[in-house]
Amino acid sequence: MILTVTLNTALDITYRVGVLRPHTSHRVSDVTERPGGKGVNVARVLAALGHATTVTGFAGGATGRSVRERLAESAGVVDALLPIAGPTRRTIAVVDELSGDTTQLNEPGPQIAAAEWAAFLSHYEELLPGASAVALCGSLPPGVPVGAYAGLIRTARSAGVPVLLDTSGEPLRRGVAARPDLVKPNADELAELTGSHDPARATQDARRRGARTVVASLGPRGLLAVTPEGRWHATPPAPVHGNPTGAGDSAVAALLSGLLEHLPWPDRLARAVALSAATVRSPVAGDFDRPTYEKLLDQVTVTGGTTTA
Amino acid sequence: MILTVTLNTALDITYRVGVLRPHTSHRVSDVTERPGGKGVNVARVLAALGHATTVTGFAGGATGRSVRERLAESAGVVDALLPIAGPTRRTIAVVDELSGDTTQLNEPGPQIAAAEWAAFLSHYEELLPGASAVALCGSLPPGVPVGAYAGLIRTARSAGVPVLLDTSGEPLRRGVAARPDLVKPNADELAELTGSHDPARATQDARRRGARTVVASLGPRGLLAVTPEGRWHATPPAPVHGNPTGAGDSAVAALLSGLLEHLPWPDRLARAVALSAATVRSPVAGDFDRPTYEKLLDQVTVTGGTTTA
Repeated sequence: MILTVTLNTALDITYRVGVLRPHTSHRVSDVTERPGGKGVNVARVLAALGHATTVTGFAGGATGRSVRERLAESAGVVDALLPIAGPTRRTIAVVDELSGDTTQLNEPGPQIAAAEWAAFLSHYEELLPGASAVALCGSLPPGVPVGAYAGLIRTARSAGVPVLLDTSGEPLRRGVAARPDLVKPNADELAELTGSHDPARATQDARRRGARTVVASLGPRGLLAVTPEGRWHATPPAPVHGNPTGAGDSAVAALLSGLLEHLPWPDRLARAVALSAATVRSPVAGDFDRPTYEKLLDQVTVTGGTTTA
Repeated sequence: MILTVTLNTALDITYRVGVLRPHTSHRVSDVTERPGGKGVNVARVLAALGHATTVTGFAGGATGRSVRERLAESAGVVDALLPIAGPTRRTIAVVDELSGDTTQLNEPGPQIAAAEWAAFLSHYEELLPGASAVALCGSLPPGVPVGAYAGLIRTARSAGVPVLLDTSGEPLRRGVAARPDLVKPNADELAELTGSHDPARATQDARRRGARTVVASLGPRGLLAVTPEGRWHATPPAPVHGNPTGAGDSAVAALLSGLLEHLPWPDRLARAVALSAATVRSPVAGDFDRPTYEKLLDQVTVTGGTTTA
């Protein structure tokens, strides 16, 4: 199975309203709820691609119970979340009915006690031997040390399990130094990590800092991959309009599935670009539109090639 | 005990954000949750005034569990909510940190099944003999017949229990016709019921429609009471600034407590005006500021008197 780690899981709630007007009252016409947090989204896409996936991280309070109840209904995703005292955060996306524009309200994550973090480390070590790959995804809730991902990467490497890191800021900086197999920053995260706004230069720099492979997501301009084997740039056939929420998580799922299926890099990247675009195109944030995915798969342009250095 | 009925209970969530800007993302700096719905708010104020209170109505889903867990922590309030399959609605108040302005998002209530409504009617009949008064408060969730309050009023009257109604629209119109002891509409609700925007005329008209006593809340202009014994107008010493959420519920609690303590009408109205103003003045929506309440109690002006007709 593939293991995804989401330390800051969420109950993702979507509201539809006519138009959001500050300082007035709104009747919400439609409410949807689903388990969220980046690694949970990655797991859902992996399951849809046919890969058995286990999610771990923390869940607590009434919102944590809701996350777990809904995970139990997700085919192909095994719940290995660890219970905590604090409540799992909610995120609320308020979608204007006409324009589709979204206003986001994100609660802070729960405080993680030292004993809860220690319990997680043991739990993670027990899960690793059964994993063919591990993805470490998203922000850290309060109480988790900023070097958390660096430690989890070292543990995975010691166990011989390939590890992908998708986070930002200082946790990314420290994580990269622990030599993960793959990082997938977006342009902003990459610039923050390296100080360079030139993606070509910044991806090289991120590799020098310790990442074996860097796949930078450049939004509508696709993906730039710098690997030990070579460099590739994969672009969608045309800009895709829609809701970009979850597009990065779909790219992570595509890269993990491509790794385990031993796909050549151009095919992995084509899958990641097509799946991201199909996620942007989906009416439900974080879901992907399968016909769009299958259609785009042959239309992604991949340039570059193996390095002969 | 006093029985309050809240068919459309809520989990009231308050978020603090810097400034709410549509179509952007916000970090919520503070989250508070409490059990809500008008009758629940009335019960909490009654308990603070020293009156044993029981809340009934519906609660379901994860949000319903949260409502019940938090009710269990409320001293003086007994939980007699009936479990249902659908989830209790959330309301979200997004408060701008600097201005204090509030944006409200209200989920729709859960669908009540016919069997759930029938179960509630039996449950209500079992609770009534222990009640010294009953308050029927707030909106009806989907599936509850529009004449629900009219039926609950007739049942209470048959049991000899004084009944107060605080709702709006068609449930108010039908409820008034069932001859409740007291209705407490605000100016808008009264105008919608009677077609008149003149509070003096409209309160008279509401009495002709069946209400034994009408106490109209006129916002900053206080309360206008028309009773079989006479007419009074109670006004606060000065306009009070703050958050009016829950002010009407505090007035209901004051009127019920005054009824059971056999206070003369001017004292009941003074209590209701002072408690409403102290609720507006409280930093937490729906709570009242006790020093403000005690200070204002002597400063409310009550004019009018008994009718000698």
